Amino acid sequence: MTPIGQLASCFVRLNGTPRNGGICPHARASLTLCCPDPLASLDGIADFSHVWLVFGFHQNKKVGAAKPKVAPPKLGGGRVGVFSSRAPYRPNSIGLSLARLDRVEGATLHLSGLDLVDGTPVYDIKPYIPAYDSPRDGDPTRLPGWLEAAQAPVQQLRVIITPEARHQIDTLEAHLVAFSTADEAVLCLIEMLASDPRSVYRKTKCEGSEYPLILDSLHIISAFDDTDRTVTVHTIELLADTDYAQAPVNVNNLGSIDRGGEPISGKS
Amino acid sequence: MTPIGQLASCFVRLNGTPRNGGICPHARASLTLCCPDPLASLDGIADFSHVWLVFGFHQNKKVGAAKPKVAPPKLGGGRVGVFSSRAPYRPNSIGLSLARLDRVEGATLHLSGLDLVDGTPVYDIKPYIPAYDSPRDGDPTRLPGWLEAAQAPVQQLRVIITPEARHQIDTLEAHLVAFSTADEAVLCLIEMLASDPRSVYRKTKCEGSEYPLILDSLHIISAFDDTDRTVTVHTIELLADTDYAQAPVNVNNLGSIDRGGEPISGKS
Repeated sequence: MTPIGQLASCFVRLNGTPRNGGICPHARASLTLCCPDPLASLDGIADFSHVWLVFGFHQNKKVGAAKPKVAPPKLGGGRVGVFSSRAPYRPNSIGLSLARLDRVEGATLHLSGLDLVDGTPVYDIKPYIPAYDSPRDGDPTRLPGWLEAAQAPVQQLRVIITPEARHQIDTLEAHLVAFSTADEAVLCLIEMLASDPRSVYRKTKCEGSEYPLILDSLHIISAFDDTDRTVTVHTIELLADTDYAQAPVNVNNLGSIDRGGEPISGKS
Repeated sequence: MTPIGQLASCFVRLNGTPRNGGICPHARASLTLCCPDPLASLDGIADFSHVWLVFGFHQNKKVGAAKPKVAPPKLGGGRVGVFSSRAPYRPNSIGLSLARLDRVEGATLHLSGLDLVDGTPVYDIKPYIPAYDSPRDGDPTRLPGWLEAAQAPVQQLRVIITPEARHQIDTLEAHLVAFSTADEAVLCLIEMLASDPRSVYRKTKCEGSEYPLILDSLHIISAFDDTDRTVTVHTIELLADTDYAQAPVNVNNLGSIDRGGEPISGKS
């Protein structure tokens, strides 16, 4: 399979990238097709509000590392079969994500509400058609208990952005790539943090509450307080001005966004 | 990519196979995994009511025959970009279908409401999770006009099964593979025919109203009457007893169902 395009996403590292697109409606990405005759291939797609992306989990560290059982974050340490999960390590390293199609500009789709990291290779785009893509009316949907919670309103963390951090992002607005305004980037940042993107390991085993992430061209440092269920964003810097920007980059494809070298955390 | 299993489906030929699973809730299929450690890989999957199958369009006649524009049956001759359709000829020959998971028996998933033909290679199974796989509440869905009709209740044909045909299928019940009873097979047959499975070409260009199809181990002949919008099933025979069973078989993988050699029609 040859990618038909490569995603440019506001999520530059797996660390902090939401585990599903519904968490982060303000996430922004764009997909520019590199297949033959992209304009004809996209004819009529602007009439659809949502599209599926069939993509490759290109940041899987080892090829052939799929195991029969996986530990989804929502299961809090328990394990289920790989086909009962959306884990990235699968016998065939193919993922499926729904995205909102905001607009089409030539060979480029502008997307939002997506959970994919920058540089993701995309193999297919399919229109979302409710009659094909959801159980028919009256056909009840059943989920295991550990996922029922995913359907209920998430008990979100309260996100506090300090006046200093807000001032910092306002002054960096002109450097944003995926977002048009600082306000848009802030909305996305709040969605990312409110859903608590920390892995079980990070939450329980790592010392300190500081949590760095990269969003668009920004390096952002927050602190979680698990007692009062808040997360405070206290520092927002241009990625290029930080040590992160100098560290080795560990992604296959860089797309159009500057990025640093924070170690990649597993996403499942 | 290596298939994790191959589908055994009640639909033996593309001809008559529904264009989406919602049309045919009584369609039956089974998927037996051939990947390593299938029992562990499926652990917990019985807690889900529906699963996605990521599969290959293995009956595409030519490799690399994808064109930028396609003519979906619902568009009545018009053309749209391939990424605005679910057509089988795509830059990467990957399909996506939702199925009801009826039960799990060892390494075998018993599925219904599926639109896939027998022998389809399956590359991945993913649980259907509404929070990930449908637009979030309040996010409106938009479709082009030619697909809006697909959302509305279809103006169905009336299916008449002659007493002779009903008697024939009752006497052949013991030969059914995908269905347990003649009643189940009849329900699926009615769903297949009521949605008018004929291609635009067959409907407008072919002489005669006779329409043969294969369902499970049966060769079934019906006649469409476009004036009074009925379709009458008049002959049901065991496939092995017909000339069809002698003709060359044109599928990659035969699965467990006997089949004949009817020319394969394009499905899009």
